[in-house]
Order: sequence, then C-alpha cells, then structure tokens
Amino acid sequence: MKNLALIGSTGSIGRQTLDVVRKHPDSFRVLSLAAGRNVNTLMEQIEEFKPLTAAVEQKEDADYIRARVNGDTSIHYGKEGLIAAAVPRDGDLLMNAVVGSMGLEPTLQAIEAGMDIGIANKETLVTAGHIVTQKASRHQVQLLPVDSEHSALQQSLEGNALKEVDRIILTASGGSFRDKTRDQLHGVTVEDALRHPNWNMGAKITIDSATMMNKGFEVIEARWLFDMSYDAIDVVLHKESIIHSLVEYRDKSVIAQLGSPDMRVPIQYALSCPERLELDDTKRLNLWETGALHFAEPDFQRYRCLQFAFDAGREGGTMPAVLNAANEEAVAAFLQGDITFLSIEDRIEEALERHQKTDNPDLAAILETDEETRAFVRSRIK
Amino acid sequence: MKNLALIGSTGSIGRQTLDVVRKHPDSFRVLSLAAGRNVNTLMEQIEEFKPLTAAVEQKEDADYIRARVNGDTSIHYGKEGLIAAAVPRDGDLLMNAVVGSMGLEPTLQAIEAGMDIGIANKETLVTAGHIVTQKASRHQVQLLPVDSEHSALQQSLEGNALKEVDRIILTASGGSFRDKTRDQLHGVTVEDALRHPNWNMGAKITIDSATMMNKGFEVIEARWLFDMSYDAIDVVLHKESIIHSLVEYRDKSVIAQLGSPDMRVPIQYALSCPERLELDDTKRLNLWETGALHFAEPDFQRYRCLQFAFDAGREGGTMPAVLNAANEEAVAAFLQGDITFLSIEDRIEEALERHQKTDNPDLAAILETDEETRAFVRSRIK
Repeated sequence: MKNLALIGSTGSIGRQTLDVVRKHPDSFRVLSLAAGRNVNTLMEQIEEFKPLTAAVEQKEDADYIRARVNGDTSIHYGKEGLIAAAVPRDGDLLMNAVVGSMGLEPTLQAIEAGMDIGIANKETLVTAGHIVTQKASRHQVQLLPVDSEHSALQQSLEGNALKEVDRIILTASGGSFRDKTRDQLHGVTVEDALRHPNWNMGAKITIDSATMMNKGFEVIEARWLFDMSYDAIDVVLHKESIIHSLVEYRDKSVIAQLGSPDMRVPIQYALSCPERLELDDTKRLNLWETGALHFAEPDFQRYRCLQFAFDAGREGGTMPAVLNAANEEAVAAFLQGDITFLSIEDRIEEALERHQKTDNPDLAAILETDEETRAFVRSRIK
Repeated sequence: MKNLALIGSTGSIGRQTLDVVRKHPDSFRVLSLAAGRNVNTLMEQIEEFKPLTAAVEQKEDADYIRARVNGDTSIHYGKEGLIAAAVPRDGDLLMNAVVGSMGLEPTLQAIEAGMDIGIANKETLVTAGHIVTQKASRHQVQLLPVDSEHSALQQSLEGNALKEVDRIILTASGGSFRDKTRDQLHGVTVEDALRHPNWNMGAKITIDSATMMNKGFEVIEARWLFDMSYDAIDVVLHKESIIHSLVEYRDKSVIAQLGSPDMRVPIQYALSCPERLELDDTKRLNLWETGALHFAEPDFQRYRCLQFAFDAGREGGTMPAVLNAANEEAVAAFLQGDITFLSIEDRIEEALERHQKTDNPDLAAILETDEETRAFVRSRIK
C-alpha cells in the first residue's frame, strides 16, 4: 500500500490519478489533496477519498469547504496549505500535478521528507532541474515522470544501464497545427489551437503542444531525468502518438514504449513502478488497425519554440526559467485573445534575449527570474 | 571474458558471431568451432581464432584440416566431434548455429555442463522445448535467443516480470512473396523465393520466411523461451522489419525493440547480455528516413504454415517434431526443384495428419519421429 499526496487534484492529471487510485484500492491510499479554486470537484474528491488533509488557494474557499464536508479531513489554504498537502505525515509519494512555478517548492519539501515524486509539473525540472535532481539524489528519492514521453523513456531504460545509452528520441505529435505551414499560422484562433489531434489535455499544454514548446520543455526535463547531454536528445515527429518515445543503446538496439494514447498508463506506471498493475478499460494497441506509423524530421524554423528550448537548456542557469515564465505569460495572453498565436514566439524570444543569465541559481533566484520575466512579458502585451 | 563454443561456425549466423567476437577481443574468446563440410572457411577461422578444438562432419575433412592447420587446435569429426566442440572445458556459452535436428544433442550436453546457450538452432526449442527448458531450469543456465524476434522479446522483457505480460507480438516481414496472393504462388521459382526483402539469410530460412513456417517456429520457440500460452502469442505483418517484436503488459503498455535489420545486433546481445557492447559499423535507426512503418493482420489461409505451427504447438507432444521434419524435407525438395512452392504446405499437412502423437516424448522418441517423418515425406516426393 502506497500513501499518496496529490496536489493539483482537480486538473486533468489529478483526476486521472484518482481514477487510477479508484481502480486499485489495495495498492494506493490518498492521504492528502490540494486544488486551486475548483471547490466543487475537490469536495467530491474529499467525500470519496477521505484524505486526512486537503488544501485550496483561498481562505474563503477553505471556510466554505470546512462548513460542508463531513469526516475528519482538515482543510488548509494558501501556500502553507499546499505544502501541508504535499508533505503529509507518512507520505510515500507526492504526485505533483500543479500547473506553474508554484509547483516547485512542494516538490523540494517532499523530497526532503523522503517522498518519491511523480512529476507532472513541468516547472519542477525545467526551471530547477539542477536543484531538484541533486536534492533527490542526496535524499535517495525517485523522480518519476508522468508525461507519456518520459514515462516511455523510463520504461525503455528499465533493466538497462544509462552509460550504455547513445541517445534518447522524444516523439512529438506536432500539435494541432502540424499540417499548417508557418504562413498559415497567421490568424489561427484559440479554438483552432485547442483542438489537439491525439490527446485530451488542459488548455495551456494543448497550446504548448501546438507551438512545440511542450516538446522543448520535455527535452529539458529529459536532460535532467536521465542525465543526458542535449546532444544525445533527438525529437522526431510522429503524428499517431503511438510510439511514446525511444532509447537507442550503444549496440544500436532501440527500445521503445508504445500504446494507445491514454495518460492513465504513464500515471499508473509512475504510481506502481517497478510493478505493473492491471489497466482494463483502456484501448489495447492494435497495430494492424492502426495500419501505419509515420515519422518526420522536425523543422526548427517551423517550430521556433523547440529551438528556443534547446538553446535555453544548453545555456542553462536561469535561462530555462525565463523560457518557462515568458511562455506561460504569452500563452495566457493568447488564450485571453490579447496576442496572436505567432506572437507567443516573439514574446518568448525577446524575453530570452534581454535576460542576463545567472549560473547555478538557487530557488530564490529562479523565482525572482520568474517574476521579473512575467512582468516584462506582460508589459510588452498591453 | 566469456569463453565461447560455436557450432555451425561457417553458416550465416556462425560467421556473424565471429564478426562480433572479432570486434570485442577483450570480451570473448573462442574455445571451439564446428562446421559441416565448408572446410576452407573453417580453416580460415581456425587460423584467426585459434580455438583449442574444431570439428567437422567427415573423417576425411578432419584429416585434410589436421594436415594443413598450424597451431594447437585438435581436430575432431562426426557426432562425437560436434559434442566435443559444443562442450569444451571451461566453456561459458554455447552458440548453437547448427541447422537441423542434429543441433539438439549438443545443446542438451552443454546445458548439463552448466553452459548458457545461444539458440540459433530452431529445432532445439521447436521439437524439444519441454526437455530443453526443464533441463535449463534444473541446471540454472540461460537460454539466450539469437533470432531478432526473440531477442527483441527478451530485450522488451528486461526489468519486467513475466507474470505482468498480457501477450507477446511477433512481427513478420511476410517474406519474399508477401505481395502475392495465394493464386499467384503457383509456379513461383526457387530463385524468386530466395529474394528476401529485408534480411540476408541462408536458403532454408529464406524459404521458411516465404511460407511463414519460420514465423510458426518462432511462435513455438516463444512459447518455450518465455513460458507463454499460445493464446498469448500474436503475429503481426510488418513489412519494414524495423520493429522486431513487442510485449504487451497488463497495464496495456507495450515495449518493443527496434533497429535496422542486422543479425549482429541480436547475436551480440545474446553474447553480452545483460550488458550491451558497442556496435559501430551497423546502420543507426533513422525513423524519419524510414518514413513509415506498416502493419497488417496475417491471413492464416494465405499462410497455411503459420496455422500448422499454432496447431502443432497447441497439440504438443511429438507434433512439432513432425512439423519441423516434414518442413525440412519439403523445403529441401523445393530447393532441389523436385516439388512446387505450394506443395511444401501439402507435404507438411499430410505428415501432420497421419502422425500418431506421443505426449511428453523423450529425446529418442523425438529423433525417431524426426526420422520417420522424413522418410514418409521423402516417399511422397519421388
């Protein structure tokens, strides 16, 4: 029985995590839940999973829930509430499904408490990969990827030695605009962008998938998760999203993980590994029904964000924090209709260009870079 | 340093095994070699690898070699010679690349001597899987597949538990006639059949690939190597031979091994596993150059041999020995121009139909079935 803390419980990954827990009541117990402002969903989750602790962002929401929920769940709020939910007493694993840079501190505190971390929060490794991986190794906890791509890599590395890896190959669907040329991207709408061909995900990550910034973040995450140099990381376009990623070894043998797109597969693997549990109600892979799997070389001119990410990753220091913060603000502005799709790239580019890098930043420097970058990007939007 | 015995050293697998050894002189030493009647190639191999023991089929060839080869290699012949070469003193691993049922006894004796077995000889598991796997488990030796498909399965199982496997999926190129309908198979020539689209292999196995009997044998081998029921073994047509096979786990996650077709990859993995060694002069997989991977459902009416194999495997006992012996004789007759391509299937079918199965046969019963079946098939040909 693994004791879980789940923060970001009402989002897409959070709900699917609880779906996995629901199917394996003998394997997992939910000790704590944290959400933002989706109070109704959180209350339902509290009723069902009876955590000892739950947290929300606002005091008023906490008061509201406290007055309505039965049982012994203690309700917290704010940053302290988030940390309380992330690091419950006797927690074995924190599933961090919070979106944004506020996911960083709970991860660090959970690592110090000796908990393994299921990482669905990009910022954890993108902006603070050097801090998180060092701390994880010092406290001997595991960083467990939840992304389908990184989970595929983890599964393809199982039973093999990292030193025998020649390169890792991340597959990319190409996102909702993959069949458009750069010219055709002028004037695309938010609605168009949210129509992802393969995966059903949140809005922010669907836009990141259309710009390929999502893949760029994954490159940086892979660098930290698997201790790879950027030269040993390739990206290949694969529109069916059936092969989730691949590892090439020094004998040129390639191991890959495949499956019908279903985020519960990597989520469940993060929770259960090295064991594998049943997952019955997902679509089995049927290769002859699929018929063909296609691959293409990514065009770094077409997908500028992918190039930004490789560059920011190679430069290191605070650059990935700039990349992430600028992207978050620019995508938010696009989703609100304030800027065009292609301007996302321009806003990120200028934020990266003006930034004076700090090497080996501590958490404070990363958060400062984050805030400062956001302010700059916002100033350039309205 | 692993001490190797290699029997069948002048065939396709044997020569590629020595190519691997040649590139890793610090990892492998050849203690012994055995060949059939390809005396000149064997003599070159003896000069290069300086084994302690070498063996050929015929006394006259042994005498010929003994008179011409320098050094301390002791030259043997006949069945005793083959066994002497298979089980040298201090041997760690026997690579059994002999074609035909005479590969069986050396395997059993090497297992008793505590050697791991690289199995490139089909008959070992097809006709005597129950004996070989039992003996291997009693003597705690490993059975290491050399086929690209089974090696792919082994690699896809690495770090996972067999009990968590839902099914294994063997890929099949479809062989040299895969684009022909059954009707178009009337009158195809030996020359046509020997033109395999992806792999450069010996004549017998290239024909077995065209009839898909090769895949059928692999199904039976997989049953024994990985302790699978036949219901948990699927075959999928995959004409590019890039995905070499796949394992589906109970969480519906699928692990696969891929690579450009090069038998040295699985051969080297059998010799080096669980470690992986460099293999530099092979073609790296380039998915966007490949462009697309195709899959199709195998038609058991079109590929009757595949159905024969599943049926013979499920029936068990001496049936797989009949399958193998009848196939060997029928293919030999086709290669000699004595029967047509489609008659291969008819000869096998009638041999299977008339056979009275013995359950749990010992080695003597298997060899008797082998001889009796061959005699019957030959009697039906001329």
